[in-house]
Amino acid sequence: MKICLKIEYDGTDFCGWQIQPNKRTIQQTVTDAIKTLTGEEVNLVGSGRTDSGVHAKGQVAHFETKATIPAERFALALNTILPSDVKIVESFEVDESFHARFSAKRKTYEYKMYISESPRPLKERYSTRIGFSLDIEKMKKACEHFVGRHDFKCFLASGSAVKDTVREIYRAEIFERDGDVIFEVCGNGFLYNMVRIMVGTLVKVGTGKLDASEVEKIIKLGERKGAGVTLPPQGLTLVSVEY
Amino acid sequence: MKICLKIEYDGTDFCGWQIQPNKRTIQQTVTDAIKTLTGEEVNLVGSGRTDSGVHAKGQVAHFETKATIPAERFALALNTILPSDVKIVESFEVDESFHARFSAKRKTYEYKMYISESPRPLKERYSTRIGFSLDIEKMKKACEHFVGRHDFKCFLASGSAVKDTVREIYRAEIFERDGDVIFEVCGNGFLYNMVRIMVGTLVKVGTGKLDASEVEKIIKLGERKGAGVTLPPQGLTLVSVEY
Repeated sequence: MKICLKIEYDGTDFCGWQIQPNKRTIQQTVTDAIKTLTGEEVNLVGSGRTDSGVHAKGQVAHFETKATIPAERFALALNTILPSDVKIVESFEVDESFHARFSAKRKTYEYKMYISESPRPLKERYSTRIGFSLDIEKMKKACEHFVGRHDFKCFLASGSAVKDTVREIYRAEIFERDGDVIFEVCGNGFLYNMVRIMVGTLVKVGTGKLDASEVEKIIKLGERKGAGVTLPPQGLTLVSVEY
Repeated sequence: MKICLKIEYDGTDFCGWQIQPNKRTIQQTVTDAIKTLTGEEVNLVGSGRTDSGVHAKGQVAHFETKATIPAERFALALNTILPSDVKIVESFEVDESFHARFSAKRKTYEYKMYISESPRPLKERYSTRIGFSLDIEKMKKACEHFVGRHDFKCFLASGSAVKDTVREIYRAEIFERDGDVIFEVCGNGFLYNMVRIMVGTLVKVGTGKLDASEVEKIIKLGERKGAGVTLPPQGLTLVSVEY
């Protein structure tokens, strides 16, 4: 039986999704919980990695099991074993053909910022502080250039070995909510650090260091140095993966 | 010079506001930071205690100093010393007559809940999970009985030694925001655990175990056993103190 899990986690105390020796990772923690429950060493395949410190509301993963536990009961059973910073939101059976990574059609990420001269303890865990005001209207204009099928080499972390840097962005929006500034982006896939560099570029626009129209040129030119800095991980949340 | 501090903290890793031997408390942490900055052992007087695990966006405290640092600079200077879970939002000079506790006229608290069958890691830190649906309309009706000047003995934690249990509630509202259920209450003062027991009573109404109209009787009768349970601390935030 192939089981699909929808997973929520607070990434603060994890070294990201992917299993690494002697590190606390989400993939390891969930794999260990499945072993405690079923006795099996499964291969837990996620929709993709998330970096150290990045959160998820709707990460998706699959694994094969011979256990006779009904698919829907896995969520409840695993949650009694899992620590409080990672829990299964939902579990269900999927077809043999389903693959958490290769079958994924769209992913949605959210990046949260707050504007404040001093750090705010109740904001710091799930958003990134920006110490100066931002021109949201200019950032909205810049967002328009993200939408569509582009070579996003300019938003790829340097040192990354990926070859195909073409991705399609379906939606990219920036807006204010409860005093926070939120960037929401939906695409068919994202390069390593791509969302965090996109927001770094938007912040450059919001502070007037870069004109919104220049974002188009930066994408066409494909040079990392034209884009903004990589913003810190704690503002980023993988919201959902669609199949 | 008398300095007033507006303090924000994530209460998760603190044993509440008040100094206690061998415990990590907010009062101790801020007092230590003032000592590092000025060399003085000050008496830091808060607007009131908050319990272990309770958060604050706008706790207020005062202290006397002979330091020559301008009052407004204390915030920035203390923030370089303080840990990430407690920071000074604002600092300013106040009159000799000002007292963080005795001059306080109104306090506003917020209690946040989320409705979910399973725990949600991204909600758990700042809200309390309710595992069943709530009838918000009934809870709104129950809230009306809180408003006014009443003897709130029924909402006093058992074992508390306080004698005067009369308080005035100016505003008590329950509403939904971003999928969370929020209780906001403003009054001239609150008894030990009072807000958490008020919300526990509202939840009893929301699940149909108690009729909204019975809340009036519970207050009049003044017996703790008629009210609901004390909900956990992590949902509670001291929003502001007015003078």
